[in-house]
Amino acid sequence: MIENALRYSHTLLKNTVVRGDKVIDATVGNGGDTILLATLVGQTGTVYGFDIQEQAIQTTKEKLMLTGLSEQVELYQQGHETVADIVPEKTEIAAAIFNLGYLPKGDKSIITQGKTTIQSLNEILLRLRKSGLVLIVVYYGHEGGKTEKEAVLTFAEQLPQESFNVLQYNFINQRNTPPFLLAIEKK
Amino acid sequence: MIENALRYSHTLLKNTVVRGDKVIDATVGNGGDTILLATLVGQTGTVYGFDIQEQAIQTTKEKLMLTGLSEQVELYQQGHETVADIVPEKTEIAAAIFNLGYLPKGDKSIITQGKTTIQSLNEILLRLRKSGLVLIVVYYGHEGGKTEKEAVLTFAEQLPQESFNVLQYNFINQRNTPPFLLAIEKK
Repeated sequence: MIENALRYSHTLLKNTVVRGDKVIDATVGNGGDTILLATLVGQTGTVYGFDIQEQAIQTTKEKLMLTGLSEQVELYQQGHETVADIVPEKTEIAAAIFNLGYLPKGDKSIITQGKTTIQSLNEILLRLRKSGLVLIVVYYGHEGGKTEKEAVLTFAEQLPQESFNVLQYNFINQRNTPPFLLAIEKK
Repeated sequence: MIENALRYSHTLLKNTVVRGDKVIDATVGNGGDTILLATLVGQTGTVYGFDIQEQAIQTTKEKLMLTGLSEQVELYQQGHETVADIVPEKTEIAAAIFNLGYLPKGDKSIITQGKTTIQSLNEILLRLRKSGLVLIVVYYGHEGGKTEKEAVLTFAEQLPQESFNVLQYNFINQRNTPPFLLAIEKK
């Protein structure tokens, strides 16, 4: 069974993140990835979570309390481009995940943007440990999605092969623009 | 650790093929995939192996004897486009694998061709069981490689999404045209 892009991003996280790791959820959304990451890093690890929308932060805070995972998670209601204000430059990050697009069940006019996504990626790649992973699930069927997709793909294609492997995991016979995954691995 | 295209093709085979299955190695080459498939299907299964080059068939035959895996493998020194002459239409195939390009360490002027590759793919897809996989490792850095790559990609993109999932697994920041993987799953 071939996994879809979202599931494959979770498989890669499970293969990479271990207890005690520091990781980033760059788009907290409804908290699905935050909870997975909090489970993987355990109480000795840290998940830094970013989202500009109060609704996302509140929903996720509640889910974390209900699942007993609050302790290892720091949630910030601010854009992921501010990651350098929160995560010191010497912190080694094991993994980060982005879900680009809008908040599911939220306001579809509030979307991630290529410029701030790339600002955030640059800061995170500086902090990525050897064999660490940055995963980007690229939704692009919505208005503005194609522009961000092109910007992020161009950015990813230009990452130096001496320092990074960049995988695109993409279903190419689908009409309804399902998301694809970009996985950036630090060598 | 993100697997390269060749390793990921093996991971997918291991997740899909079980004892007793019938599978196809459409490009036997130096026998690496044949041996993996023979191990996975066991003595109750069948591997149908095709290669036009005597060198490939001989090398692989010897490796199979040395590893005690000959019994479940049928090797044919003929092109994979003749698969219908060997595998009856009602045979349910669990998986098939292609490595496009030339025989490693062999004559680099003898290469797979888009037209016959697609003929073979059409015959194999007719026989693929539900949840079965066809894996194509696309090498295209050699002369003639780009033409075949374009033909196979166009074919794969047009497979109906009601019947197949088509995954492209591709490293997009590499200068030296490493192979990419196409994985076609029957729904």
